[in-house]
Amino acid sequence: MRLSRYFLPVLKENPAEAQIVSHRYMLRAGMIKQAAAGIYSWLPLGFKVLRKLENIIHEEQIRAGHIPIQMPILQSAELWRESGRYDDYGEEMLRMKDRHGRDMLYTPTAEELVTDIFRAHVNSYRELPLTLYQIQWKFRDEIRPRFGVMRGREFLMKDGYNFDLTKEDALHAYNRHLVSYLRTYERMGLQAIPMRADSGPIGGDDTHEFLVLAETGESEVFYDSAITDLRFGNRDIDYDDRAACAAVLEEFTSRYARTDETHVEAEFHAQVPEARRRQARGIEVGQIFYFGTKYSEPMGATVVNEKGERVPVHMGSHGIGVSRLVGAIIEASHDDRGIIWPEGVTPFHCGIVNLKQGDAAADAACESLYGALTAIGLEPLYDDRDERAGAKFATMDLIGLPWRITVGPRGLRSGVVELTSRRTGESEALRPEEAVERVARIYGKAAD
Amino acid sequence: MRLSRYFLPVLKENPAEAQIVSHRYMLRAGMIKQAAAGIYSWLPLGFKVLRKLENIIHEEQIRAGHIPIQMPILQSAELWRESGRYDDYGEEMLRMKDRHGRDMLYTPTAEELVTDIFRAHVNSYRELPLTLYQIQWKFRDEIRPRFGVMRGREFLMKDGYNFDLTKEDALHAYNRHLVSYLRTYERMGLQAIPMRADSGPIGGDDTHEFLVLAETGESEVFYDSAITDLRFGNRDIDYDDRAACAAVLEEFTSRYARTDETHVEAEFHAQVPEARRRQARGIEVGQIFYFGTKYSEPMGATVVNEKGERVPVHMGSHGIGVSRLVGAIIEASHDDRGIIWPEGVTPFHCGIVNLKQGDAAADAACESLYGALTAIGLEPLYDDRDERAGAKFATMDLIGLPWRITVGPRGLRSGVVELTSRRTGESEALRPEEAVERVARIYGKAAD
Repeated sequence: MRLSRYFLPVLKENPAEAQIVSHRYMLRAGMIKQAAAGIYSWLPLGFKVLRKLENIIHEEQIRAGHIPIQMPILQSAELWRESGRYDDYGEEMLRMKDRHGRDMLYTPTAEELVTDIFRAHVNSYRELPLTLYQIQWKFRDEIRPRFGVMRGREFLMKDGYNFDLTKEDALHAYNRHLVSYLRTYERMGLQAIPMRADSGPIGGDDTHEFLVLAETGESEVFYDSAITDLRFGNRDIDYDDRAACAAVLEEFTSRYARTDETHVEAEFHAQVPEARRRQARGIEVGQIFYFGTKYSEPMGATVVNEKGERVPVHMGSHGIGVSRLVGAIIEASHDDRGIIWPEGVTPFHCGIVNLKQGDAAADAACESLYGALTAIGLEPLYDDRDERAGAKFATMDLIGLPWRITVGPRGLRSGVVELTSRRTGESEALRPEEAVERVARIYGKAAD
Repeated sequence: MRLSRYFLPVLKENPAEAQIVSHRYMLRAGMIKQAAAGIYSWLPLGFKVLRKLENIIHEEQIRAGHIPIQMPILQSAELWRESGRYDDYGEEMLRMKDRHGRDMLYTPTAEELVTDIFRAHVNSYRELPLTLYQIQWKFRDEIRPRFGVMRGREFLMKDGYNFDLTKEDALHAYNRHLVSYLRTYERMGLQAIPMRADSGPIGGDDTHEFLVLAETGESEVFYDSAITDLRFGNRDIDYDDRAACAAVLEEFTSRYARTDETHVEAEFHAQVPEARRRQARGIEVGQIFYFGTKYSEPMGATVVNEKGERVPVHMGSHGIGVSRLVGAIIEASHDDRGIIWPEGVTPFHCGIVNLKQGDAAADAACESLYGALTAIGLEPLYDDRDERAGAKFATMDLIGLPWRITVGPRGLRSGVVELTSRRTGESEALRPEEAVERVARIYGKAAD
């Protein structure tokens, strides 16, 4: 993309309403614009990141054998009355009447609706296991929305639901989700720690929240510092292998790690040596639940088992806060000049800064780099505006592309351009084709 | 995908509520399930098609230089009061109050919101031209929703908005949209004819609707039959070339083609020789508008021009009915056994039917075909269930994959499998690797 043809409305001033760094940088980098309290438009740069997160989630869910669907934004109140949650949900549920006076609501979650799909179509244990998920906009009418997309009212969420014959099967689904979430967050450049959590209005016994450590996190967390050394990495996991999935659960959840909701000081002290005890703040970016027959029983979501008996299915639900993740990544990865995108989610792979727009050699070198990077399947953002170098660098730093190639007449006279890491600030003089090759390698692409 | 692990709830019976073929087949093929009147859940097969349409639209919009954003589902009533449309819109607009009593609505379209984004961030003619678009769920509270996704209340739509300095620039944007839409529909296997239309509540002078001819269409259309011979084809168009875009407009819209709203019988007779006069029914799948300063003026969306004067921008808006397209494609492409997907939008590229599940040779051949097709980047759907051949064929015919490879012990003894075209019903006996190569070639992939 050429910046002269893009829509990147960066702000020079810090917006007064933004209290935390992710909100500030998302506004300043032209990623979002508030449309109403807690409701945002995603401008081109923000939408690109959101879409990358969506794609990673889809890939990892499909890899785990989960099947994507799309449920509607508006639901009828009927199903929620059936489960008993319509009255329980309180003022956070946005309710309305359609033109025929029927009670409708903006979906805050979809346990009821997916259970209704299941009971309408599945009849036999032979059709299990089944996990359906979607990525869809949700709404919770927060009384005081704040912190930008971190605590908005309208938010994008991945919500998945497993249907299994037995508790044991459902716990395997739980473990499978835990594994797929670890992979998902790591691909996004995040360390998200599974912590024992409280089940809240979804209900259920087993539940873990995934928390990203950050000073601005809304949750107080207590954990064994050994946990932060764990990495899922490039393990090749067979999602049908129950023992392998259970071993990952064990590895990542056996050490003490809890939010303030479940924290017990005495247990913390008993389980964790003092030198490894940590108290910090965390941002919740996902949660997995096993809740058994909580919905299947009242809603009649049953299958016929091997003995010919009709039994309610065991379920769980599993969520990732997609739009909030954009904020969480920025909270975890920035400096005082702006965002620093992890390579896995960066909106553009590489910036190209032309120090002297209009200089024939510089223009030609930039075009050639742009063409070469595009040809290998990368998306560069080429700042081809007639601006001072300082302004171009400030924009690149603010929007946080992990790599920048700087092209100027002086370097070109020596046959080099400069490749700079946004994270370390280190620069290297390279021949243009070397720079392309280096960037290609970083992103796992082959340069021609 | 292996069918044994998929969720494809096909129905044997014709659902009583479905009056038109696309609605019937979408329910029967397990693509959708009604959640409330005019509101649907998209089950796995339906979601896959929806996602393919989205991807084609994104690719073609980006090719035309248009920039994707994502605006919210809920909007505040304020902006709509500013434009004067809040009261005009009537009962089709779904309105609600949030917990603080503020008036909100479920977006039926986004001229106001996108104009607000523009006026907040763009100040100079140098930042033009600009076209922003999104693919987002919309709502119109139809009094009698029917025909499945063809006339639902909640629907997925691509809506794009151009901002230009002059009327001439905006008309180029109009033409650019026309070209990109022609390409988009053709990639979906559809012939969508641009017809002069009525502007309705969006307002404006210039507008064309894109109509797919189908008996079940809601619009009466009148056209010169020479139009149906036009194809955009594989032309390589430069979207910055005004003359080239204008020539496409001229080619595709100069002949008589109108909906009943703009039809004038005398003009029809004067312009079209009797032998080429056609009267038929059509499904509207998109519309483009130029409406000048209708929104920019009242909302103060202005830029400073070259002379330093502040002038309102010229705008247009351009929509594609994404969810309705799924229905339109089926209306245009089916037979009495089910759907016939065009290759560009098929949910799976190819079906594999194992005639004798459990037969070692047949199972091995199917697995090998599955692996080979997957390896070249295609998605086969392998019916690995223990079902009668007749049931497997009926399912494949119903869900409409354009190609099917049938594998049975008898054929394998002669070293062949059968490749069948869903559209023509023609079958050919081929060695398995030939079948893979043939399917690869159909989809423009290289077989190893």
